[in-house]
Amino acid sequence: MGALRLPSLALLLSPCKSLRLVSRPLPLRFRLPTLKAAASVSGGSGSRGLSSQSLAKEEPSLPPPSADRKPSSSYEGSVTPRSVDFNAWYLDVIASAELADYGPVRGTMVIRPYGYAIWEAIQEYLNVKFKETGHSNMYFPQFIPYSFIEKEASHVEGFSPELALVTIGGGKELEEKLVVRPTSETIVNHMFTQWIHSYRDLPLMINQWANVTRWEMRTKPFVRTLEFLWQEGHTAHATLEEAEKEALQMIDVYKKFSYEQAAIPVIVGRKSRAETFAGAIRTYTIEAMMGDRKALQAGTSHNLGQNFSRAFGTQFTDENGQRQHVWQTSWAVSTRFVGGIIMTHGDDAGLMLPPRIAPIQVIVVPIWKTADEKNGVMNAVSSLKEVLHKAEIRVKIDDTEQRTPGWKFNFWEMKGVPLRIEVGPRDVANKSVVVSRRDIPGKPGKDFGISMEPSVLVTHIKSRLEEIQTSLLQRATSFRDSNIVDVNSYDELKEAIAQGKWARGPWSASDAEEVKVKEETGATIRCFPFEQPQGQKKCFMTGNPADEVAIFAKSY
Amino acid sequence: MGALRLPSLALLLSPCKSLRLVSRPLPLRFRLPTLKAAASVSGGSGSRGLSSQSLAKEEPSLPPPSADRKPSSSYEGSVTPRSVDFNAWYLDVIASAELADYGPVRGTMVIRPYGYAIWEAIQEYLNVKFKETGHSNMYFPQFIPYSFIEKEASHVEGFSPELALVTIGGGKELEEKLVVRPTSETIVNHMFTQWIHSYRDLPLMINQWANVTRWEMRTKPFVRTLEFLWQEGHTAHATLEEAEKEALQMIDVYKKFSYEQAAIPVIVGRKSRAETFAGAIRTYTIEAMMGDRKALQAGTSHNLGQNFSRAFGTQFTDENGQRQHVWQTSWAVSTRFVGGIIMTHGDDAGLMLPPRIAPIQVIVVPIWKTADEKNGVMNAVSSLKEVLHKAEIRVKIDDTEQRTPGWKFNFWEMKGVPLRIEVGPRDVANKSVVVSRRDIPGKPGKDFGISMEPSVLVTHIKSRLEEIQTSLLQRATSFRDSNIVDVNSYDELKEAIAQGKWARGPWSASDAEEVKVKEETGATIRCFPFEQPQGQKKCFMTGNPADEVAIFAKSY
Repeated sequence: MGALRLPSLALLLSPCKSLRLVSRPLPLRFRLPTLKAAASVSGGSGSRGLSSQSLAKEEPSLPPPSADRKPSSSYEGSVTPRSVDFNAWYLDVIASAELADYGPVRGTMVIRPYGYAIWEAIQEYLNVKFKETGHSNMYFPQFIPYSFIEKEASHVEGFSPELALVTIGGGKELEEKLVVRPTSETIVNHMFTQWIHSYRDLPLMINQWANVTRWEMRTKPFVRTLEFLWQEGHTAHATLEEAEKEALQMIDVYKKFSYEQAAIPVIVGRKSRAETFAGAIRTYTIEAMMGDRKALQAGTSHNLGQNFSRAFGTQFTDENGQRQHVWQTSWAVSTRFVGGIIMTHGDDAGLMLPPRIAPIQVIVVPIWKTADEKNGVMNAVSSLKEVLHKAEIRVKIDDTEQRTPGWKFNFWEMKGVPLRIEVGPRDVANKSVVVSRRDIPGKPGKDFGISMEPSVLVTHIKSRLEEIQTSLLQRATSFRDSNIVDVNSYDELKEAIAQGKWARGPWSASDAEEVKVKEETGATIRCFPFEQPQGQKKCFMTGNPADEVAIFAKSY
Repeated sequence: MGALRLPSLALLLSPCKSLRLVSRPLPLRFRLPTLKAAASVSGGSGSRGLSSQSLAKEEPSLPPPSADRKPSSSYEGSVTPRSVDFNAWYLDVIASAELADYGPVRGTMVIRPYGYAIWEAIQEYLNVKFKETGHSNMYFPQFIPYSFIEKEASHVEGFSPELALVTIGGGKELEEKLVVRPTSETIVNHMFTQWIHSYRDLPLMINQWANVTRWEMRTKPFVRTLEFLWQEGHTAHATLEEAEKEALQMIDVYKKFSYEQAAIPVIVGRKSRAETFAGAIRTYTIEAMMGDRKALQAGTSHNLGQNFSRAFGTQFTDENGQRQHVWQTSWAVSTRFVGGIIMTHGDDAGLMLPPRIAPIQVIVVPIWKTADEKNGVMNAVSSLKEVLHKAEIRVKIDDTEQRTPGWKFNFWEMKGVPLRIEVGPRDVANKSVVVSRRDIPGKPGKDFGISMEPSVLVTHIKSRLEEIQTSLLQRATSFRDSNIVDVNSYDELKEAIAQGKWARGPWSASDAEEVKVKEETGATIRCFPFEQPQGQKKCFMTGNPADEVAIFAKSY
């Protein structure tokens, strides 16, 4: 067919310049005061008055885990210290570390590459675990007929205030409004009903990675947004026992992820009736303590019983030829988890990422003055990078010439990178480098004179990363444990909650009394933890015998 | 904290049975006659009258690539032969191979695990390539203020008939309607305007994996659905030249994927003005010839020029301190590609998947009669599986006892699995297996007596998979080339199109004449291919000099 000819351009401008993508913290802040009920949109381009994000008033500030840290004076985009204002700190970190930005529609969020990379780390781990436990990925449409939502009584009650509705399609008013999925149990059951015929079709175990929409009035980046990303698992089983086993298995997968990857010592337990998912017979949860000691529900797994299968007629023929309704589960983790990571580990200087989920594990900062020095340093830095990259360590060089090394140190600390390697002319001469830990400020966190010899360096870096991973979990666990108070009376609970702590005590009181606690203290039952003290217990509210202790806390 | 106690169930049914997920083809068909304009929803559960999918009338049937194949008589769920009715075959394959199903809302599609696994294979390859070429993943909200869509004149003209609009959120009528994204150029530019300040912020190169909604009236699973999944890349550059280079780079990534992974010999070229994306100055495309010889636009890459940057005021300060509008690109591949794979390689017996993207590359069918035989065969089959799995070959054992081996052979052929291994008692005794190729029917496609010795077997399987990969591409290339006719007059074009072929001829006529060809023949300019014949050319329509040949074809 002749020669390959690429089309010429009608108009060619100046020759291609060598341009680099420079990471640059934007001065914008995530704090905007107004709250509107309906979607509001910015007027002109470039304006920052885009969003009317609601910000709940936070508790008085708390000492950060590393209060001895010096403020990052030389980095001009520095965040509000966490110890001064936790909420302002959170929003500043998200803006300065370029994790997310507000979308043009109130309550929506743009997840920027650095924030999205954390979500990808969550996805990569969980996706493997879901497949290992026998689930297949698939995809359900996001538009759900309004009538579906109405089929399961408690489900419609739980979700109808939060729905976004499509009423116009292709220029025409629709006959039936479509719900933009807030969760997929209804449409999943509609399809399961067509796919499940006999016990041989069970268990049916699927998962989808998707966006979901809930019209929230009080939003906060990652923690609660109008649209968010999540995975939702859905399974159908022949027996209640199997469904229960599955629901427990998946909350355990979430727990392991939290401890082993995110270094978040979640407490696993069962939700109270009042806090159970709309449509479930039982909800399991992982509850995480944030740096301000508020609880974050970081993942849930529901035993749906036969609620949806009865509403949608999802039946199978059992081995005896009898028609039965299937038993189901659903379970989800969302981009909210990214918020949990920020609020668990961050300190005054900004973000602090557990090495296993950090998009960048090692930042390399070359230091030089003369052109001669630069050559030597850049050569050393390039081979360093190659060595670490080959060892599957996520490494980046910051060789921007617009910024001083000091500025870079603070910037990458703010971005939460676990380790920094500094390489100057003297290091090149000595064939060694300085390695600094993000989690231990100052000299105690520095290793001087680490050999550049590949095997020595890789071993050192890997073991430091593991130490940081372990240390973050330990620190968060100590913080958690020192902020949970065992209570034996309602007064003790009130005092614990007033101090911003979690209260744990025997509970067998009524739903009405649970509401009363919430109204009087702001705290809710986060869960009945799986881990229970042994021995006889008396409900701290009623004095009646209690089977279990419950954990109460204020929450996001 | 005492002993770990899992909550007991109030109600426990029969002890857990060992249940298996049995892949079972559903008898349902994808062919439903009616077409409605507005969203229609099924009445009761279990009914199949869910969707009113529109099915365009297809050309007369064509001989399939392997017409000598015998019909799969013993497999009761068999599909309409491709040679009898291409469109019915396509829909039958999708239903029988459990690739997708209709959603409850007209035009929507549920992507089932087997179909989704093909999409995951596409994602895995492209995601790596996007990162290698300097792009970062991120996520933009799907709700776009209606006013955004109106900002770029040709964009609103192109997309407004297809929009789904959210008008109610949280129980309230919204002040401004929200568009459910049909594509993200507008919201991307809105955000880019805030992130781009100087030439140092460029190039800005991002990608997102997302769902998009276009209110299509004539839908077809995978090929055109109301909601679909895709990736959309968006980049901003300092010069037109850089944007052009990027647009070309990304169409080349798509081309390589098509040839090397999907075994689809796409033709790469530039779209005519009339077929250029709404808002682009230039659109590059990969065009694939389906088994019925209709063209499928399988991926596009757009040079957007400054159209969106001018509409949204996306400017940067250049090295001389001057304010300039950025130059942009966008590029996308969607779940439509799965449809392209089905329609390129399938034959009368069903799906035929290129090994590199096949979710299952090898299906193992154990054959036995007595319990003694079963033991021996199942042991052999298990170790086979382990050997292949270790060698990173995607392998599955079909040990269902409800089905005969013959049924299984046909079933997995219909599912398009590239290789089948049969293991019977005699094979166990001989320590060898029979390996059958999906792409060559009957004895010529069988290798008898392949040793079970791990290294021998793995080498054999790997080389067979590579052969099949190559063979599918060769077969599709021959088919394509024998169905493209070089034309030198409008009459010759009409004849070629009437025969269902593609016509290639010199073209420099007007947009009006392009419309005329479409109206009179049903064919459109698919592209001006990059690969051009050398020498002087005269437009076949006007006789005027022509710079390029264009390819005309009917298309999906």
